[in-house]
Amino acid sequence: MTSDLSQVKAIVFDVFGTVVDWRSSILQEITAVAGRLGVQGNWEDFSDRWRAGYYEGTKDVLSQKRTWIKADTMHLERLHLLMDEYGMTGLSEEEIVHLNKAWHRLTPWPDSVEGLTRLKKKFIIGTLSNGNNGLLVHMAKHAGLPWDIVMGGENFQSYKPDSKVYIGAVDLLGYQPHEVMVAASHLSDLYAAKSNGLKTGFVVRPDEFGNSEMQADLVGDERIDVSAKDFVDLARKMGA
Amino acid sequence: MTSDLSQVKAIVFDVFGTVVDWRSSILQEITAVAGRLGVQGNWEDFSDRWRAGYYEGTKDVLSQKRTWIKADTMHLERLHLLMDEYGMTGLSEEEIVHLNKAWHRLTPWPDSVEGLTRLKKKFIIGTLSNGNNGLLVHMAKHAGLPWDIVMGGENFQSYKPDSKVYIGAVDLLGYQPHEVMVAASHLSDLYAAKSNGLKTGFVVRPDEFGNSEMQADLVGDERIDVSAKDFVDLARKMGA
Repeated sequence: MTSDLSQVKAIVFDVFGTVVDWRSSILQEITAVAGRLGVQGNWEDFSDRWRAGYYEGTKDVLSQKRTWIKADTMHLERLHLLMDEYGMTGLSEEEIVHLNKAWHRLTPWPDSVEGLTRLKKKFIIGTLSNGNNGLLVHMAKHAGLPWDIVMGGENFQSYKPDSKVYIGAVDLLGYQPHEVMVAASHLSDLYAAKSNGLKTGFVVRPDEFGNSEMQADLVGDERIDVSAKDFVDLARKMGA
Repeated sequence: MTSDLSQVKAIVFDVFGTVVDWRSSILQEITAVAGRLGVQGNWEDFSDRWRAGYYEGTKDVLSQKRTWIKADTMHLERLHLLMDEYGMTGLSEEEIVHLNKAWHRLTPWPDSVEGLTRLKKKFIIGTLSNGNNGLLVHMAKHAGLPWDIVMGGENFQSYKPDSKVYIGAVDLLGYQPHEVMVAASHLSDLYAAKSNGLKTGFVVRPDEFGNSEMQADLVGDERIDVSAKDFVDLARKMGA
Protein backbone atom coordinates (compact mmCIF):
# COMPACT_ATOMS: atom_id res chain seq x y z
CA MET A 1 0.00 0.00 0.00
CA THR A 2 2.52 2.59 -1.14
CA SER A 3 0.20 4.63 -3.34
CA ASP A 4 -0.17 8.26 -2.26
CA LEU A 5 -3.79 8.76 -1.33
CA SER A 6 -3.22 11.95 0.68
CA GLN A 7 -4.64 14.10 -2.09
CA VAL A 8 -7.90 12.22 -2.52
CA LYS A 9 -10.81 14.64 -1.93
CA ALA A 10 -13.73 12.72 -3.38
CA ILE A 11 -14.70 9.06 -3.51
CA VAL A 12 -17.22 7.98 -6.13
CA PHE A 13 -18.87 4.60 -5.87
CA ASP A 14 -20.06 1.93 -8.19
CA VAL A 15 -23.55 1.13 -6.91
CA PHE A 16 -25.05 -2.19 -8.11
CA GLY A 17 -23.18 -4.86 -6.22
CA THR A 18 -20.79 -2.48 -4.47
CA VAL A 19 -23.26 -0.45 -2.39
CA VAL A 20 -26.44 -2.50 -2.71
CA ASP A 21 -27.22 -6.21 -2.83
CA TRP A 22 -29.18 -6.14 -6.09
CA ARG A 23 -29.61 -9.93 -6.38
CA SER A 24 -31.35 -10.58 -3.06
CA SER A 25 -33.56 -7.53 -3.49
CA ILE A 26 -34.62 -8.37 -7.05
CA LEU A 27 -35.14 -12.04 -6.24
CA GLN A 28 -37.41 -11.11 -3.35
CA GLU A 29 -39.58 -8.79 -5.45
CA ILE A 30 -39.86 -11.23 -8.37
CA THR A 31 -40.66 -14.15 -6.10
CA ALA A 32 -43.37 -12.15 -4.37
CA VAL A 33 -45.01 -11.13 -7.66
CA ALA A 34 -44.75 -14.67 -9.09
CA GLY A 35 -46.31 -16.06 -5.94
CA ARG A 36 -49.18 -13.63 -6.19
CA LEU A 37 -49.71 -14.59 -9.83
CA GLY A 38 -49.36 -18.30 -9.05
CA VAL A 39 -46.51 -18.83 -11.53
CA GLN A 40 -43.71 -21.34 -10.96
CA GLY A 41 -40.17 -20.75 -12.17
CA ASN A 42 -36.51 -20.44 -11.39
CA TRP A 43 -36.55 -16.88 -10.10
CA GLU A 44 -32.84 -16.82 -9.40
CA ASP A 45 -32.21 -17.37 -13.11
CA PHE A 46 -34.85 -14.77 -13.88
CA SER A 47 -33.04 -12.25 -11.66
CA ASP A 48 -29.64 -13.00 -13.14
CA ARG A 49 -30.95 -12.74 -16.67
CA TRP A 50 -32.70 -9.47 -15.87
CA ARG A 51 -29.41 -8.10 -14.61
CA ALA A 52 -27.60 -9.49 -17.68
CA GLY A 53 -30.02 -7.65 -19.96
CA TYR A 54 -28.95 -4.35 -18.47
CA TYR A 55 -25.27 -5.24 -18.71
CA GLU A 56 -25.67 -6.25 -22.36
CA GLY A 57 -27.56 -3.03 -23.01
CA THR A 58 -24.62 -0.93 -21.83
CA LYS A 59 -22.33 -2.94 -24.10
CA ASP A 60 -24.66 -2.33 -27.06
CA VAL A 61 -24.47 1.39 -26.39
CA LEU A 62 -20.68 1.30 -26.11
CA SER A 63 -20.35 -0.64 -29.38
CA GLN A 64 -22.79 1.81 -30.99
CA LYS A 65 -25.30 -0.93 -31.80
CA ARG A 66 -27.85 1.43 -30.32
CA THR A 67 -28.01 5.03 -29.13
CA TRP A 68 -27.79 5.88 -25.45
CA ILE A 69 -30.81 4.90 -23.36
CA LYS A 70 -31.46 4.93 -19.63
CA ALA A 71 -30.97 1.87 -17.43
CA ASP A 72 -34.68 2.14 -16.52
CA THR A 73 -35.53 1.61 -20.20
CA MET A 74 -33.19 -1.36 -20.58
CA HIS A 75 -34.64 -2.91 -17.44
CA LEU A 76 -38.18 -2.51 -18.73
CA GLU A 77 -37.38 -3.99 -22.15
CA ARG A 78 -35.78 -7.07 -20.61
CA LEU A 79 -38.51 -7.41 -17.99
CA HIS A 80 -41.17 -7.65 -20.71
CA LEU A 81 -39.17 -10.33 -22.55
CA LEU A 82 -38.59 -12.37 -19.40
CA MET A 83 -42.19 -12.10 -18.22
CA ASP A 84 -43.34 -13.47 -21.57
CA GLU A 85 -40.83 -16.31 -21.42
CA TYR A 86 -41.69 -17.25 -17.83
CA GLY A 87 -45.42 -16.98 -18.44
CA MET A 88 -45.98 -14.15 -16.00
CA THR A 89 -49.25 -12.68 -17.18
CA GLY A 90 -51.97 -10.66 -15.52
CA LEU A 91 -50.09 -7.53 -14.52
CA SER A 92 -51.21 -4.12 -15.75
CA GLU A 93 -48.59 -1.94 -17.46
CA GLU A 94 -48.64 0.25 -14.35
CA GLU A 95 -47.84 -2.79 -12.20
CA ILE A 96 -45.05 -3.80 -14.58
CA VAL A 97 -43.54 -0.31 -14.38
CA HIS A 98 -43.75 -0.56 -10.60
CA LEU A 99 -42.01 -3.94 -10.66
CA ASN A 100 -39.37 -2.48 -12.97
CA LYS A 101 -38.63 0.05 -10.26
CA ALA A 102 -37.51 -2.79 -8.01
CA TRP A 103 -34.11 -1.52 -9.19
CA HIS A 104 -34.89 1.74 -7.34
CA ARG A 105 -35.57 -0.19 -4.14
CA LEU A 106 -32.42 -2.24 -3.67
CA THR A 107 -31.18 -3.00 -0.16
CA PRO A 108 -27.73 -1.78 0.87
CA TRP A 109 -25.13 -4.19 2.22
CA PRO A 110 -25.17 -4.06 6.05
CA ASP A 111 -22.04 -1.88 6.26
CA SER A 112 -22.86 0.54 3.41
CA VAL A 113 -24.71 3.31 5.22
CA GLU A 114 -22.37 3.33 8.23
CA GLY A 115 -19.28 3.35 6.02
CA LEU A 116 -20.61 6.09 3.73
CA THR A 117 -21.65 8.22 6.68
CA ARG A 118 -18.13 8.02 8.07
CA LEU A 119 -16.50 8.68 4.70
CA LYS A 120 -18.77 11.69 4.12
CA LYS A 121 -17.19 13.48 7.07
CA LYS A 122 -13.81 13.55 5.36
CA PHE A 123 -14.58 13.23 1.64
CA ILE A 124 -17.11 14.25 -0.95
CA ILE A 125 -18.97 11.03 -1.65
CA GLY A 126 -20.91 10.36 -4.81
CA THR A 127 -22.20 7.71 -7.13
CA LEU A 128 -20.49 6.76 -10.37
CA SER A 129 -22.95 4.24 -11.69
CA ASN A 130 -24.38 3.11 -14.99
CA GLY A 131 -27.80 3.51 -13.39
CA ASN A 132 -29.70 6.62 -14.44
CA ASN A 133 -29.86 9.60 -12.10
CA GLY A 134 -33.56 9.20 -11.31
CA LEU A 135 -32.98 5.59 -10.31
CA LEU A 136 -30.01 6.56 -8.14
CA VAL A 137 -31.89 9.36 -6.39
CA HIS A 138 -34.86 7.13 -5.62
CA MET A 139 -32.55 4.39 -4.37
CA ALA A 140 -30.76 6.85 -2.09
CA LYS A 141 -34.10 7.92 -0.59
CA HIS A 142 -35.17 4.30 -0.15
CA ALA A 143 -31.91 3.05 1.31
CA GLY A 144 -30.73 6.12 3.21
CA LEU A 145 -27.56 6.57 1.17
CA PRO A 146 -26.13 9.99 2.09
CA TRP A 147 -24.59 11.01 -1.26
CA ASP A 148 -23.17 14.49 -1.71
CA ILE A 149 -23.59 14.12 -5.46
CA VAL A 150 -25.35 11.69 -7.77
CA MET A 151 -23.57 11.05 -11.07
CA GLY A 152 -23.41 8.30 -13.61
CA GLY A 153 -23.18 7.33 -17.23
CA GLU A 154 -26.28 9.38 -17.95
CA ASN A 155 -24.45 12.62 -17.20
CA PHE A 156 -22.01 11.87 -19.98
CA GLN A 157 -24.34 9.96 -22.32
CA SER A 158 -22.12 6.92 -22.15
CA TYR A 159 -21.42 4.00 -19.83
CA LYS A 160 -18.53 2.70 -17.77
CA PRO A 161 -15.91 1.62 -18.65
CA ASP A 162 -15.79 4.42 -21.25
CA SER A 163 -13.16 6.99 -20.23
CA LYS A 164 -15.72 9.75 -20.80
CA VAL A 165 -17.51 8.68 -17.63
CA TYR A 166 -14.45 8.77 -15.35
CA ILE A 167 -13.00 11.94 -16.84
CA GLY A 168 -16.43 13.55 -16.91
CA ALA A 169 -16.95 12.87 -13.22
CA VAL A 170 -13.55 14.33 -12.32
CA ASP A 171 -14.35 17.47 -14.31
CA LEU A 172 -17.84 17.82 -12.86
CA LEU A 173 -16.33 17.71 -9.37
CA GLY A 174 -13.72 20.26 -10.39
CA TYR A 175 -10.78 18.09 -9.39
CA GLN A 176 -7.78 16.43 -10.96
CA PRO A 177 -7.92 12.66 -11.60
CA HIS A 178 -5.56 11.80 -8.72
CA GLU A 179 -7.87 13.67 -6.32
CA VAL A 180 -10.75 11.30 -7.04
CA MET A 181 -11.02 7.65 -6.02
CA VAL A 182 -13.41 5.16 -7.55
CA ALA A 183 -14.63 2.53 -5.08
CA ALA A 184 -16.04 -0.67 -6.53
CA SER A 185 -16.28 -4.40 -6.04
CA HIS A 186 -15.59 -5.03 -9.75
CA LEU A 187 -11.96 -4.95 -10.81
CA SER A 188 -12.79 -4.09 -14.44
CA ASP A 189 -14.35 -0.82 -13.23
CA LEU A 190 -11.31 -0.03 -11.10
CA TYR A 191 -8.79 -0.85 -13.81
CA ALA A 192 -10.63 1.51 -16.18
CA ALA A 193 -10.58 4.22 -13.49
CA LYS A 194 -6.85 3.66 -12.94
CA SER A 195 -6.08 3.90 -16.64
CA ASN A 196 -7.67 7.36 -16.56
CA GLY A 197 -5.52 8.50 -13.65
CA LEU A 198 -8.04 8.09 -10.84
CA LYS A 199 -7.30 6.32 -7.56
CA THR A 200 -8.89 2.95 -6.83
CA GLY A 201 -10.56 1.45 -3.78
CA PHE A 202 -11.52 -2.22 -3.98
CA VAL A 203 -14.26 -3.48 -1.68
CA VAL A 204 -14.82 -7.23 -1.70
CA ARG A 205 -18.44 -8.30 -2.09
CA PRO A 206 -18.18 -12.10 -2.19
CA ASP A 207 -21.95 -12.63 -2.07
CA GLU A 208 -22.97 -10.36 -4.96
CA PHE A 209 -23.76 -13.20 -7.33
CA GLY A 210 -25.21 -15.64 -4.80
CA ASN A 211 -25.15 -19.23 -6.07
CA SER A 212 -25.06 -18.28 -9.75
CA GLU A 213 -22.16 -19.07 -12.05
CA MET A 214 -20.85 -15.52 -11.89
CA GLN A 215 -17.81 -15.19 -9.63
CA ALA A 216 -17.12 -12.15 -7.49
CA ASP A 217 -13.66 -10.60 -7.70
CA LEU A 218 -11.73 -11.47 -4.57
CA VAL A 219 -8.30 -9.91 -4.99
CA GLY A 220 -6.80 -7.20 -7.18
CA ASP A 221 -3.34 -6.45 -8.52
CA GLU A 222 -0.98 -3.48 -8.22
CA ARG A 223 -3.49 -1.19 -9.92
CA ILE A 224 -5.55 -1.27 -6.71
CA ASP A 225 -4.56 1.52 -4.32
CA VAL A 226 -6.51 0.29 -1.33
CA SER A 227 -8.41 -2.94 -0.64
CA ALA A 228 -11.09 -3.22 2.02
CA LYS A 229 -13.37 -5.94 3.24
CA ASP A 230 -16.35 -3.58 3.50
CA PHE A 231 -17.21 0.14 3.64
CA VAL A 232 -16.42 0.52 7.34
CA ASP A 233 -13.01 -0.99 6.67
CA LEU A 234 -12.59 1.39 3.71
CA ALA A 235 -13.46 4.36 5.96
CA ARG A 236 -10.88 3.20 8.49
CA LYS A 237 -8.20 2.72 5.86
CA MET A 238 -8.93 6.15 4.38
CA GLY A 239 -8.64 7.77 7.81
CA ALA A 240 -12.30 8.72 8.02
CA MET B 1 -53.83 29.43 -5.99
CA THR B 2 -55.81 27.13 -8.24
CA SER B 3 -52.87 25.44 -9.98
CA ASP B 4 -52.77 21.65 -9.58
CA LEU B 5 -49.61 20.86 -7.67
CA SER B 6 -50.68 17.36 -6.62
CA GLN B 7 -48.38 15.73 -9.17
CA VAL B 8 -45.21 17.55 -8.16
CA LYS B 9 -42.58 14.98 -7.17
CA ALA B 10 -39.41 17.05 -7.19
CA ILE B 11 -38.56 20.63 -6.28
CA VAL B 12 -35.37 22.12 -7.69
CA PHE B 13 -34.00 25.33 -6.28
CA ASP B 14 -32.23 28.35 -7.53
CA VAL B 15 -29.35 28.77 -5.06
CA PHE B 16 -27.67 32.21 -5.06
CA GLY B 17 -30.13 34.55 -3.37
CA THR B 18 -32.86 31.94 -2.98
CA VAL B 19 -31.12 29.45 -0.65
CA VAL B 20 -28.08 31.41 0.46
CA ASP B 21 -27.43 35.05 1.34
CA TRP B 22 -24.53 35.56 -1.06
CA ARG B 23 -24.16 39.30 -0.47
CA SER B 24 -23.58 39.25 3.29
CA SER B 25 -21.26 36.26 3.00
CA ILE B 26 -19.15 37.76 0.20
CA LEU B 27 -19.04 41.19 1.84
CA GLN B 28 -17.78 39.62 5.05
CA GLU B 29 -14.99 37.70 3.34
CA ILE B 30 -13.87 40.63 1.20
CA THR B 31 -13.92 43.02 4.14
CA ALA B 32 -11.82 40.64 6.22
CA VAL B 33 -9.21 40.23 3.49
CA ALA B 34 -9.12 43.97 2.78
CA GLY B 35 -8.69 44.69 6.48
CA ARG B 36 -5.81 42.26 6.68
CA LEU B 37 -4.18 43.88 3.65
CA GLY B 38 -4.87 47.39 5.01
CA VAL B 39 -6.80 48.47 1.88
CA GLN B 40 -9.71 50.93 2.01
CA GLY B 41 -12.66 50.69 -0.37
CA ASN B 42 -16.37 50.37 -0.86
CA TRP B 43 -16.63 46.62 -0.35
CA GLU B 44 -20.35 46.55 -0.90
CA ASP B 45 -19.80 47.83 -4.42
CA PHE B 46 -16.96 45.34 -4.81
CA SER B 47 -19.30 42.51 -3.81
CA ASP B 48 -22.09 43.63 -6.13
CA ARG B 49 -19.69 44.03 -9.04
CA TRP B 50 -18.20 40.60 -8.38
CA ARG B 51 -21.67 39.13 -8.52
CA ALA B 52 -22.43 41.15 -11.68
CA GLY B 53 -19.36 39.72 -13.39
CA TYR B 54 -20.74 36.24 -12.99
CA TYR B 55 -24.16 37.28 -14.22
CA GLU B 56 -22.66 38.97 -17.27
CA GLY B 57 -20.56 35.87 -17.90
CA THR B 58 -23.64 33.68 -18.15
CA LYS B 59 -25.15 36.17 -20.60
CA ASP B 60 -21.99 36.08 -22.72
CA VAL B 61 -22.25 32.29 -22.88
CA LEU B 62 -25.93 32.45 -23.83
CA SER B 63 -25.27 35.00 -26.58
CA GLN B 64 -22.36 32.85 -27.78
CA LYS B 65 -19.82 35.60 -27.19
CA ARG B 66 -17.80 32.91 -25.45
CA THR B 67 -17.91 29.15 -25.00
CA TRP B 68 -19.27 27.60 -21.83
CA ILE B 69 -17.11 28.08 -18.73
CA LYS B 70 -17.69 27.29 -15.07
CA ALA B 71 -18.95 29.86 -12.59
CA ASP B 72 -15.72 29.31 -10.63
CA THR B 73 -13.76 30.52 -13.65
CA MET B 74 -15.95 33.58 -14.17
CA HIS B 75 -15.64 34.44 -10.49
CA LEU B 76 -11.85 34.18 -10.63
CA GLU B 77 -11.57 36.33 -13.76
CA ARG B 78 -13.67 39.08 -12.26
CA LEU B 79 -11.94 38.84 -8.89
CA HIS B 80 -8.57 39.51 -10.52
CA LEU B 81 -9.95 42.57 -12.33
CA LEU B 82 -11.58 43.96 -9.21
CA MET B 83 -8.54 43.35 -7.01
CA ASP B 84 -6.43 45.31 -9.48
CA GLU B 85 -8.93 48.15 -9.58
CA TYR B 86 -9.30 48.33 -5.79
CA GLY B 87 -5.56 48.07 -5.24
CA MET B 88 -5.72 44.80 -3.35
CA THR B 89 -2.20 43.48 -3.69
CA GLY B 90 -0.09 41.09 -1.67
CA LEU B 91 -2.10 37.88 -1.96
CA SER B 92 -0.52 34.76 -3.42
CA GLU B 93 -2.38 33.05 -6.25
CA GLU B 94 -3.26 30.29 -3.80
CA GLU B 95 -4.80 32.87 -1.45
CA ILE B 96 -6.71 34.42 -4.33
CA VAL B 97 -8.09 31.02 -5.32
CA HIS B 98 -9.12 30.49 -1.71
CA LEU B 99 -10.85 33.88 -1.65
CA ASN B 100 -12.58 32.99 -4.93
CA LYS B 101 -14.05 30.00 -3.15
CA ALA B 102 -15.92 32.39 -0.86
CA TRP B 103 -18.71 31.48 -3.29
CA HIS B 104 -18.46 27.91 -1.96
CA ARG B 105 -18.90 29.16 1.62
CA LEU B 106 -22.11 31.16 1.44
CA THR B 107 -24.43 31.26 4.44
CA PRO B 108 -28.00 29.97 4.06
CA TRP B 109 -30.96 32.15 4.96
CA PRO B 110 -32.14 31.27 8.51
CA ASP B 111 -35.10 29.19 7.26
CA SER B 112 -33.34 27.36 4.41
CA VAL B 113 -32.06 24.21 6.14
CA GLU B 114 -35.24 23.69 8.17
CA GLY B 115 -37.46 24.19 5.13
CA LEU B 116 -35.39 21.92 2.90
CA THR B 117 -35.26 19.22 5.56
CA ARG B 118 -39.06 19.27 5.74
CA LEU B 119 -39.50 19.33 1.97
CA LYS B 120 -37.06 16.43 1.57
CA LYS B 121 -39.45 14.13 3.45
CA LYS B 122 -42.10 14.51 0.77
CA PHE B 123 -40.19 15.53 -2.38
CA ILE B 124 -36.94 14.96 -4.16
CA ILE B 125 -35.05 18.20 -3.59
CA GLY B 126 -32.23 19.40 -5.78
CA THR B 127 -30.35 22.41 -6.99
CA LEU B 128 -30.97 24.04 -10.35
CA SER B 129 -28.30 26.69 -10.30
CA ASN B 130 -25.93 28.40 -12.67
CA GLY B 131 -23.18 27.59 -10.18
CA ASN B 132 -20.95 24.67 -11.16
CA ASN B 133 -21.45 21.29 -9.53
CA GLY B 134 -18.22 21.40 -7.53
CA LEU B 135 -19.20 24.78 -6.09
CA LEU B 136 -22.68 23.50 -5.21
CA VAL B 137 -21.36 20.34 -3.53
CA HIS B 138 -18.86 22.29 -1.43
CA MET B 139 -21.54 24.79 -0.48
CA ALA B 140 -23.89 21.99 0.58
CA LYS B 141 -21.16 20.54 2.83
CA HIS B 142 -20.42 23.97 4.30
CA ALA B 143 -24.01 25.02 4.85
CA GLY B 144 -25.62 21.67 5.64
CA LEU B 145 -27.97 21.73 2.64
CA PRO B 146 -29.50 18.25 2.36
CA TRP B 147 -29.85 17.94 -1.42
CA ASP B 148 -30.95 14.67 -2.99
CA ILE B 149 -29.36 15.77 -6.26
CA VAL B 150 -27.04 18.53 -7.35
CA MET B 151 -27.68 19.87 -10.86
CA GLY B 152 -27.11 23.07 -12.72
CA GLY B 153 -26.22 24.75 -15.97
CA GLU B 154 -22.97 22.76 -16.04
CA ASN B 155 -24.85 19.50 -16.57
CA PHE B 156 -26.29 20.87 -19.78
CA GLN B 157 -23.39 23.11 -20.81
CA SER B 158 -25.65 26.13 -20.76
CA TYR B 159 -27.16 28.57 -18.27
CA LYS B 160 -30.58 29.52 -17.04
CA PRO B 161 -32.84 30.86 -18.47
CA ASP B 162 -32.02 28.62 -21.47
CA SER B 163 -34.75 25.99 -21.88
CA LYS B 164 -32.06 23.31 -22.12
CA VAL B 165 -31.41 23.67 -18.40
CA TYR B 166 -35.04 23.25 -17.29
CA ILE B 167 -35.83 20.48 -19.75
CA GLY B 168 -32.51 18.80 -19.05
CA ALA B 169 -33.20 18.72 -15.32
CA VAL B 170 -36.66 17.24 -15.86
CA ASP B 171 -35.17 14.52 -18.06
CA LEU B 172 -32.32 13.79 -15.67
CA LEU B 173 -34.86 13.26 -12.89
CA GLY B 174 -36.93 11.03 -15.18
CA TYR B 175 -40.11 13.06 -14.75
CA GLN B 176 -42.51 15.08 -16.84
CA PRO B 177 -42.29 18.90 -16.66
CA HIS B 178 -45.47 19.26 -14.57
CA GLU B 179 -43.98 16.88 -11.99
CA VAL B 180 -41.10 19.25 -11.26
CA MET B 181 -41.29 22.62 -9.50
CA VAL B 182 -38.62 25.29 -9.67
CA ALA B 183 -38.34 27.34 -6.48
CA ALA B 184 -36.64 30.72 -6.75
CA SER B 185 -36.69 34.26 -5.48
CA HIS B 186 -36.20 35.63 -9.00
CA LEU B 187 -39.29 35.88 -11.18
CA SER B 188 -37.31 35.72 -14.44
CA ASP B 189 -36.12 32.24 -13.47
CA LEU B 190 -39.65 31.14 -12.63
CA TYR B 191 -41.19 32.56 -15.77
CA ALA B 192 -38.64 30.65 -17.86
CA ALA B 193 -39.44 27.48 -15.91
CA LYS B 194 -43.16 28.04 -16.48
CA SER B 195 -42.72 28.54 -20.20
CA ASN B 196 -41.11 25.09 -20.30
CA GLY B 197 -44.04 23.47 -18.50
CA LEU B 198 -42.58 23.24 -15.02
CA LYS B 199 -44.36 24.36 -11.87
CA THR B 200 -43.20 27.46 -10.02
CA GLY B 201 -42.64 28.28 -6.37
CA PHE B 202 -41.80 31.87 -5.52
CA VAL B 203 -39.96 32.56 -2.27
CA VAL B 204 -39.55 36.23 -1.38
CA ARG B 205 -36.04 37.24 -0.37
CA PRO B 206 -36.39 40.98 0.21
CA ASP B 207 -32.87 41.37 1.62
CA GLU B 208 -30.90 39.67 -1.17
CA PHE B 209 -29.49 42.89 -2.57
CA GLY B 210 -29.00 44.74 0.73
CA ASN B 211 -28.78 48.49 0.24
CA SER B 212 -27.66 48.30 -3.40
CA GLU B 213 -29.70 49.63 -6.29
CA MET B 214 -30.87 46.15 -7.26
CA GLN B 215 -34.44 45.49 -6.19
CA ALA B 216 -35.69 42.12 -5.03
CA ASP B 217 -38.84 40.74 -6.65
CA LEU B 218 -41.70 41.05 -4.18
CA VAL B 219 -44.77 39.73 -5.99
CA GLY B 220 -45.40 37.52 -9.01
CA ASP B 221 -48.22 37.18 -11.50
CA GLU B 222 -50.46 34.29 -12.58
CA ARG B 223 -47.47 32.30 -13.79
CA ILE B 224 -46.54 31.68 -10.15
CA ASP B 225 -48.16 28.51 -8.80
CA VAL B 226 -47.31 29.07 -5.16
CA SER B 227 -45.81 32.03 -3.29
CA ALA B 228 -44.15 31.70 0.09
CA LYS B 229 -42.46 34.05 2.50
CA ASP B 230 -39.66 31.59 3.22
CA PHE B 231 -38.76 27.89 2.89
CA VAL B 232 -40.68 26.82 6.00
CA ASP B 233 -43.74 28.54 4.59
CA LEU B 234 -43.12 26.81 1.24
CA ALA B 235 -42.94 23.43 3.01
CA ARG B 236 -46.21 24.14 4.77
CA LYS B 237 -47.92 25.24 1.57
CA MET B 238 -46.64 22.13 -0.25
CA GLY B 239 -47.98 19.88 2.51
CA ALA B 240 -44.53 18.81 3.71
